[in-house]
Amino acid sequence: MTPAEIARSDNGLMPYPSHVRIFEVGPRDGLQSEGTVVPTDAKIELIDLLSTSGLTHIEATAFVSPTRIPQLADAEEVCARIARRPEVTYSALVPNVKGYERAIGASLREIAVFTAATDSYNQKNIGTTIEGAFERYRDVLEFAAVDGVRARGYVSVAFGCPYEGFVPAERVVEVSRRLLDMGCYQVSLGDTTGLGNPVQVAQMIGLLRDAGAGADQIALHLHDTRGTGLANALAGLQSGVTTFDSSIGGLGGSPFAAGAAGNLATEELVYMLEAMGVATGVDLDALVAAAGGVARALGKELPSRYLKAARGDKAQA
Amino acid sequence: MTPAEIARSDNGLMPYPSHVRIFEVGPRDGLQSEGTVVPTDAKIELIDLLSTSGLTHIEATAFVSPTRIPQLADAEEVCARIARRPEVTYSALVPNVKGYERAIGASLREIAVFTAATDSYNQKNIGTTIEGAFERYRDVLEFAAVDGVRARGYVSVAFGCPYEGFVPAERVVEVSRRLLDMGCYQVSLGDTTGLGNPVQVAQMIGLLRDAGAGADQIALHLHDTRGTGLANALAGLQSGVTTFDSSIGGLGGSPFAAGAAGNLATEELVYMLEAMGVATGVDLDALVAAAGGVARALGKELPSRYLKAARGDKAQA
Repeated sequence: MTPAEIARSDNGLMPYPSHVRIFEVGPRDGLQSEGTVVPTDAKIELIDLLSTSGLTHIEATAFVSPTRIPQLADAEEVCARIARRPEVTYSALVPNVKGYERAIGASLREIAVFTAATDSYNQKNIGTTIEGAFERYRDVLEFAAVDGVRARGYVSVAFGCPYEGFVPAERVVEVSRRLLDMGCYQVSLGDTTGLGNPVQVAQMIGLLRDAGAGADQIALHLHDTRGTGLANALAGLQSGVTTFDSSIGGLGGSPFAAGAAGNLATEELVYMLEAMGVATGVDLDALVAAAGGVARALGKELPSRYLKAARGDKAQA
Repeated sequence: MTPAEIARSDNGLMPYPSHVRIFEVGPRDGLQSEGTVVPTDAKIELIDLLSTSGLTHIEATAFVSPTRIPQLADAEEVCARIARRPEVTYSALVPNVKGYERAIGASLREIAVFTAATDSYNQKNIGTTIEGAFERYRDVLEFAAVDGVRARGYVSVAFGCPYEGFVPAERVVEVSRRLLDMGCYQVSLGDTTGLGNPVQVAQMIGLLRDAGAGADQIALHLHDTRGTGLANALAGLQSGVTTFDSSIGGLGGSPFAAGAAGNLATEELVYMLEAMGVATGVDLDALVAAAGGVARALGKELPSRYLKAARGDKAQA
């Protein structure tokens, strides 16, 4: 087979979708987890560069308490000053109706709500149970439906909880099913701890499909804390998943291990998928440029392995 | 399904072998690529710790020119002073008959020979073509057969060459087939550049099996330069591969990108496999301890993501 023949989803070697959607979460999930607060100008530059890379979905910020999460205190200014492109959907995380109203006030047409798959994690993270989280989001999701605002749902610690350990897939499916039934167009299953493994991913996706979720209603939000990010993405791809969350440069560390890697890096995901012939529509060089700027703003090297390899290639050229 | 039921190779979700063999290459391939020469005592401590981790195959050193590769100039002393355990096979790379004789003199009963899958890479690396490499090894492999010494063959740049780019799988299969026919009990396909992708791995293994190679005759020697190491390992596992080379701590950078990651880290491989219910026989905590010692000897942090996560877990505990 020629390289082009190998790199096709109908190659007869392993089945997978021919194209996927990358949901960039670096400006929100990534920056929120960094110890350094990135200046507003650098965030806007980052989002604008990402907007021209071919990415069609960018989570730009979160409308949360500025005292709890000072990293994202400039949510309104970021939304006002980015150069919005018509082909890109900009979204924000909202924890409650107040956050929802701020997001709408900032002219966003897509929001995300979030709950953990375990009560313990929700209690530590947002001070309530799973049931309590659903109570908070009921109004948000009803308002969004009325306003024609698209809503996405995150399920964190879906593959392992730092407080409860193993998380039964059935629990994740139940929480996901409820988010979909309440109006979320898609649920994003978060491997917040980086404890997930490929067969667990395959099982989870299978159960969620059995529970009636369409392929477009499922996203994987993977972390690379133990190096398993792309292997889990491959398992998801083989299970028919067509939406993957990732973070430019692997921005955002692990909240449970200081210095450890966190989110799956967008460049690594795009590199592997494109090499396999899975169309992402995203330009790798543009991602590398965007990552360079935010690394300078943070004053540190980002965890992405692809970035280090790209820098080495450039030094050799 | 319970965690134990998910984590089984007959789970019905994805097929894979129930147990694999890890071939540890850190003391040779890893240390050879490091800029710092590790003191002999630290190497011996490393190998002895690895010997008690459950690993059954350790490539301890190479019998090469000490002027060309000063990192491994102490090959004889290392072999003389390690505490050999009966359940562990210790091997060494040899470039020619002289190296073979040194290895035998150091009481090793397994050696490895190596060639690239491209003439260009061989010319730059060992100053000859593929054909020239086979000429050099003919006597080595004949002597090994007579002496009852097991021989393994490496095929480097099997998934992409820094000088020739894409490497046709047929070429890799041809070179591998010759190494097997000349007496190697196994060929290890090296993704030296870290350019390989999962579907390419699946294609390569399929063609090699079609060419008559048994599953036991094939190993994957993966690099993690672009974060694809474990995804490629998963593809290999799904193709029935049961031997994987890896390097403690991800020891050994990329020869083509300064500062970039190189070999797949043994801890990351063991973590993923064990989580999937694939038995490796290797104790992760023992690997972490071994990695800590060599990191101190090198005076730098090793690239393994698992190590960073483990350190974070420990700091929290």
